[in-house]
Amino acid sequence: MNTRVSFIGTGKLGTPMALNLLAAGTFDLTVYNLTPAKARHLVEQGAKLAPTAEDAASDAQIIITVLADDHAVTAVADDSFLSACPPGAIHLSLCIIRPATTEKLAETHARHNVAYVAAPVFGRPEAAAAKRLWICTSGPAAAKTRVRPVLDALGQGVYDFGEDVGAANVVKLAGNFLLTAAIEAMGEAAALAEKNGVPRALLLNMFTQTLFNCPIYNNYAQRIIAADFDNVGFSAKLALKDMRLALDTATASDTPMPILSLLRDRFLTALANDQGHLDASALALRPAQDAGLSWFPNKNVEDRK
Amino acid sequence: MNTRVSFIGTGKLGTPMALNLLAAGTFDLTVYNLTPAKARHLVEQGAKLAPTAEDAASDAQIIITVLADDHAVTAVADDSFLSACPPGAIHLSLCIIRPATTEKLAETHARHNVAYVAAPVFGRPEAAAAKRLWICTSGPAAAKTRVRPVLDALGQGVYDFGEDVGAANVVKLAGNFLLTAAIEAMGEAAALAEKNGVPRALLLNMFTQTLFNCPIYNNYAQRIIAADFDNVGFSAKLALKDMRLALDTATASDTPMPILSLLRDRFLTALANDQGHLDASALALRPAQDAGLSWFPNKNVEDRK
Amino acid sequence: MNTRVSFIGTGKLGTPMALNLLAAGTFDLTVYNLTPAKARHLVEQGAKLAPTAEDAASDAQIIITVLADDHAVTAVADDSFLSACPPGAIHLSLCIIRPATTEKLAETHARHNVAYVAAPVFGRPEAAAAKRLWICTSGPAAAKTRVRPVLDALGQGVYDFGEDVGAANVVKLAGNFLLTAAIEAMGEAAALAEKNGVPRALLLNMFTQTLFNCPIYNNYAQRIIAADFDNVGFSAKLALKDMRLALDTATASDTPMPILSLLRDRFLTALANDQGHLDASALALRPAQDAGLSWFPNKNVEDRK
Amino acid sequence: MNTRVSFIGTGKLGTPMALNLLAAGTFDLTVYNLTPAKARHLVEQGAKLAPTAEDAASDAQIIITVLADDHAVTAVADDSFLSACPPGAIHLSLCIIRPATTEKLAETHARHNVAYVAAPVFGRPEAAAAKRLWICTSGPAAAKTRVRPVLDALGQGVYDFGEDVGAANVVKLAGNFLLTAAIEAMGEAAALAEKNGVPRALLLNMFTQTLFNCPIYNNYAQRIIAADFDNVGFSAKLALKDMRLALDTATASDTPMPILSLLRDRFLTALANDQGHLDASALALRPAQDAGLSWFPNKNVEDRK
Repeated sequence: MNTRVSFIGTGKLGTPMALNLLAAGTFDLTVYNLTPAKARHLVEQGAKLAPTAEDAASDAQIIITVLADDHAVTAVADDSFLSACPPGAIHLSLCIIRPATTEKLAETHARHNVAYVAAPVFGRPEAAAAKRLWICTSGPAAAKTRVRPVLDALGQGVYDFGEDVGAANVVKLAGNFLLTAAIEAMGEAAALAEKNGVPRALLLNMFTQTLFNCPIYNNYAQRIIAADFDNVGFSAKLALKDMRLALDTATASDTPMPILSLLRDRFLTALANDQGHLDASALALRPAQDAGLSWFPNKNVEDRK
Repeated sequence: MNTRVSFIGTGKLGTPMALNLLAAGTFDLTVYNLTPAKARHLVEQGAKLAPTAEDAASDAQIIITVLADDHAVTAVADDSFLSACPPGAIHLSLCIIRPATTEKLAETHARHNVAYVAAPVFGRPEAAAAKRLWICTSGPAAAKTRVRPVLDALGQGVYDFGEDVGAANVVKLAGNFLLTAAIEAMGEAAALAEKNGVPRALLLNMFTQTLFNCPIYNNYAQRIIAADFDNVGFSAKLALKDMRLALDTATASDTPMPILSLLRDRFLTALANDQGHLDASALALRPAQDAGLSWFPNKNVEDRK
Repeated sequence: MNTRVSFIGTGKLGTPMALNLLAAGTFDLTVYNLTPAKARHLVEQGAKLAPTAEDAASDAQIIITVLADDHAVTAVADDSFLSACPPGAIHLSLCIIRPATTEKLAETHARHNVAYVAAPVFGRPEAAAAKRLWICTSGPAAAKTRVRPVLDALGQGVYDFGEDVGAANVVKLAGNFLLTAAIEAMGEAAALAEKNGVPRALLLNMFTQTLFNCPIYNNYAQRIIAADFDNVGFSAKLALKDMRLALDTATASDTPMPILSLLRDRFLTALANDQGHLDASALALRPAQDAGLSWFPNKNVEDRK
Repeated sequence: MNTRVSFIGTGKLGTPMALNLLAAGTFDLTVYNLTPAKARHLVEQGAKLAPTAEDAASDAQIIITVLADDHAVTAVADDSFLSACPPGAIHLSLCIIRPATTEKLAETHARHNVAYVAAPVFGRPEAAAAKRLWICTSGPAAAKTRVRPVLDALGQGVYDFGEDVGAANVVKLAGNFLLTAAIEAMGEAAALAEKNGVPRALLLNMFTQTLFNCPIYNNYAQRIIAADFDNVGFSAKLALKDMRLALDTATASDTPMPILSLLRDRFLTALANDQGHLDASALALRPAQDAGLSWFPNKNVEDRK
C-alpha cells in the first residue's frame, strides 16, 4: 500500500520535487498551494488537490512543506493544522528557516503528537527535477527512518546531523554562506585579473578545471564569465534573506563572521541599487563596479535599469 | 641530444621538481643553491653542481629559478648573471613575485638577449614530487614553446595566459587569494556550526563530498577538522607574503578587495600571536578563537606556545 | 498647579533623572518599578509609589518610561496600560528601541488617544545626575511642547527631529554607532602606536587636546589609556544590543554599513571571550589583542577571567 | 643675529609656512623649489632664492623640507646634499613619510654630522597661514631645542614624542587614520539617517554641537552636509597615499587594523571611479552610493564626471 504524502508549497522548487514523488509510484500524493493554479499541473499528473492546508494534513502520513520563510512555516503549521494531523504523522519540512524557529516548531508539534523532521536541500530547480538534490536531515531518529523513502525519491544523497532538530538548518545556512563567499571571492579575483589584463574567463576556467573543480565554483564561475545574472536560479533578495538568517544564528551564538558581514553588506548594496531581482551571482558585480569595471554583456549595468 | 637545463633554488619545492627533470632522462641538469648542501642529494642523483649562479647560467639553454621573493630573484638575475647567459637562453622563472617586478625583469633580460618566461606553479611539495603541479605561463610565445618539455616533466597541466609576461603571476596571486579565502570561509562556517552543536567534521565532510568536492576544499577541510596545523606545507608567514603581493598588485591597479584585506589582517594577527610558523590553514583558528572555541587537538593553542 | 508625572523604570539611569524632576519642584511624581526596592530612594525623596504600571499611568498627564529594550516597552505599554491612561495623556519614552517599534507603538497609542513622544538621551548616569544629558525628540508637535518643561529639567539641551516618531531613535542609534566607531578607531590607532614604540597615552592625549577635543574622545581615550574597563558605564553587552538595533534598522532600509558590521563582530568576540560585562570601551582591547598586546593594568586580560 | 633657515618645497602648504617665518623677522630665509616660479612670491617678500637644493643647504643652520613622499625626501637629501650642509646643521623634515624611511634618513644624516628632526604637522593650508598648525616632533633632544623657535613661528602647539626619530611620523599616520575613520563613520551614519528620513544636516549638526564638538568632526561634517568635495584641501589621492603608509607601518609591525583596511579599499574605489581628485571627505559618498543615495548638490555625482 502506498504511503500517503501531502505536499504544501508547490512553487518553483516544490513542483519538480512533487513530480518526482508522483513518478516514484509508491506515494499517494495530495497537494496544496495558497494559489491553487500553481498546483494544477500536479493535479493533471495524478495528485489530489486539497482545498486547505488542514485538509492536506488530515489525510497524510507524511506532510512535506516547501515554504518561503520562518513566518510562512509558522503560519501554516499552527494549532489548527497540527490538530488536523493524524496521530503519529510526520511533518517533513524542507524549508530554510532559523534553527531557533525549528526548535520552537518541534516543541509545538510534539504537543500534538506530530514529529518534525528538518530536511533542507541544496540544489536549484533544475537539480530538483533531475533528482540531484543533496539533503540534510535532523530530528527524531524513528521519524527520519520513516521519511527516508521520500527523501530517496527526491535527491541523490542524504546527510544526517542527528536528533537535535535545528542542526540541519545550521548546516543549510552554513552552506549558503560558503557558496556566497565563493561568489564574492571569485568576483574579487576576477576584478583583480581584469584590472591587470587577464580576462576573467581565462582565470576562472583554469581554476574551475583544477583546484576548484566542483559544482559550486563551476556553476557560478560560468555565470560570472557570461555576466548572466538575469537568468535567476536564486535571487539576490533571497540570498540576502539567508545571510540574515545566518547572521541571526551567528549573533545568537556569539559567533563573529566577518565574511558573512561583508556578504550581508554586499547584498544590501545590490538591493539599494535596484539589483535585488538579479541572480545571487550578481554579487560578483560589486567588486567589479568598485574597481570601475562593467561586466553586463554588451553594455553597462546602469544602462539596463 | 639532451637539453641543458640549470636549476637555481633547490629547496623544499625545487628539489622534487629537479628530481623529476633528472628522471625524465632528456635533460642535462646543473644545479645551484646558495647553501650547496641543499643540492647534494641532486648531485648524488646525477646533477652537476655549479659553484655560482653565473656558472649555472653560462652553460644552460634553459635556466630555471625557484626563489623566495622579488628581492631574491632580482638579486640573482643581475647584470653579471644575464651577461653570463648564452645568447638566446631562456630564464624560466617559477618564482611567485609581483607582476610589476616580472615586467621589469623581462625588460632587463631582453637587453641581454635572454627570454624571460613566468611559470608559477600550484601545488605543495608532495604534488611536485608526484608531477601533479598545475603551471601558469606567460611570456614570449617562442620561448614558451621551447620550455614546454620541461614543464611537461614537472606538472600535470599547463595553462597559458599570453605574452604579457606579468599575467601568470597575476593568476598565481589570484589563486592563492582564492584558496586562502576558502580557508577563512570554512573556518567561519565551522565556528558557526560548532557554536550551534554541529561538529565541524560532519559539516565539512558533507560539503567536501558534495558541493565543494575539489582539491582545495578537500585538502584544507581535512586539516581544519584535524586541527593539523603543525604539519606545514605552506606557512602562515609565507601566505602573508603572498597576500601582500596580491594587495600591492590590487593597490597599483585600483582594485579594492575586501576579503583580501581581511585575510591580510588575519595573518597579521596570527604573526602577532606567535602562529606565523603554523600552516596557512591555521587561519581557520582565528574565527574559532574569536568565537571562544579551542581547536588544537587535545589542548588549547595557548598551551602549546 | 504641578504637572502630574509618572516615571516607570527607576534603574541606574532613570533614578537620577527622576530625582531631578523632584528637585525641580514643579512636578508631582509617581514612580513604578518592577522591583519596588529600586524605587524606594525616590519615595523617600517625595515620590508616590504606584503598585502597578497601570496605576502609574492612570493618574498622570505625562508618563515617562526608561526601559531596557523593545520587548520591555511593548510589554509595559499594552492595551490594559493604554486604557488606564487618562485621555490626552502623553507617553514620553526615553527608551532606546528600534525606530520601527516606535512607529508601531505610536499607532497603538493613537488608538487609545495617548500621544507617544520619543526622547532617547545621550549621557551616562553621572551626566543624568548633573542634568547634562542631550535629548533627541520626535513625535507630535503639540505633545512635544507639553513635555518640554520635563525635558528641560533633565538635560542640557534638546534637539528635535520632527513629527516622524521614529526619527529620534534613528539619531540615537546613529550616535551610539558613531561613539563606538570612535572607540574602535582609537583602539586601532593605539595598537599601531604601541607596536611602533609610542605609548598610547602620549598619542591619545595629543589628539584629545587638539583635533579630537570633544566629550566622546576625551572620555573614552582616558578609559583606554587607563585600561579602565571594569568601571562600567555602558557595558559591552548593552552596546552589542544597540549595534544590533542599528543593524536591523540599516537592513530594513537597505543601508550597508561596514564599520557597523565590524563593531557587531567585535562585540560578539568580546562576549564569546567572557568580556561582555566590561565597559564598551573594552572594544579597544580587540585590536590590541589581535596585535599581541596586553593592556589590562599590571596583568594580562586572560589572567583576570 | 638672525638664524639662517632654508626652506625646500614651497607648495600649497610650504608657502604659507615660509611666509610666517619671514613675518617673524628673526630668520634669514633662503628658499628652493624644483619649479622656481613657485618660490617667486616668497622672493618678493624678502626670501633669497637658491638655484639648487645643495645651495639652499650650504648656507643654512636649519634646513626645512616640505616634500611629497618618501621618494622625494630621499632624492633631495642625498649624499651630495648632506655633504653640502654645514657641520652641525639640522634637517627639520615636515614631510609625511614612513617611520622606517625616517630612521634610515636619520642614519645617513648622522654620518654627515647633520641632525634629522621629524616634525610632521596637522592642518590644511588655511591653518598653516593662520599659524594654527599642530606639530609633532621626534629626534635628538638638542636639535629639537634649537629648532623650537622655528616651530613656534609655524604652529599653535608642539607635541614631542621622544628621541626615537620615527615616532612623530607614527603619530602623524595614526592621526590621519583617525580623521579618515571619522569621515567614514559620519558617512555611514548619515546614510543610515537619510534612508530613514532624517536629513544628514540635522543629524551631523546635533553631534558636532554636542558629543563630537571638535575640529575634525566640525570641519568634515560641514563638507559632508554641503557635499562640498570639489573644494579640495586634502585630496582622496593623497589620503590614499597616507593610508598606504599607515598600512605599510602596520604590516611591518604585525598590527591588524580592520578600519584602516576598509579605508584603503574605499579610497581605491574612489580612484577607480574617477573621484581621486575630490577632497578626502568625498569618502562619505561611498556609503551613500552603496545605499543608493546621491549627494552632490543639485545633481548626481555621475553627471559631473
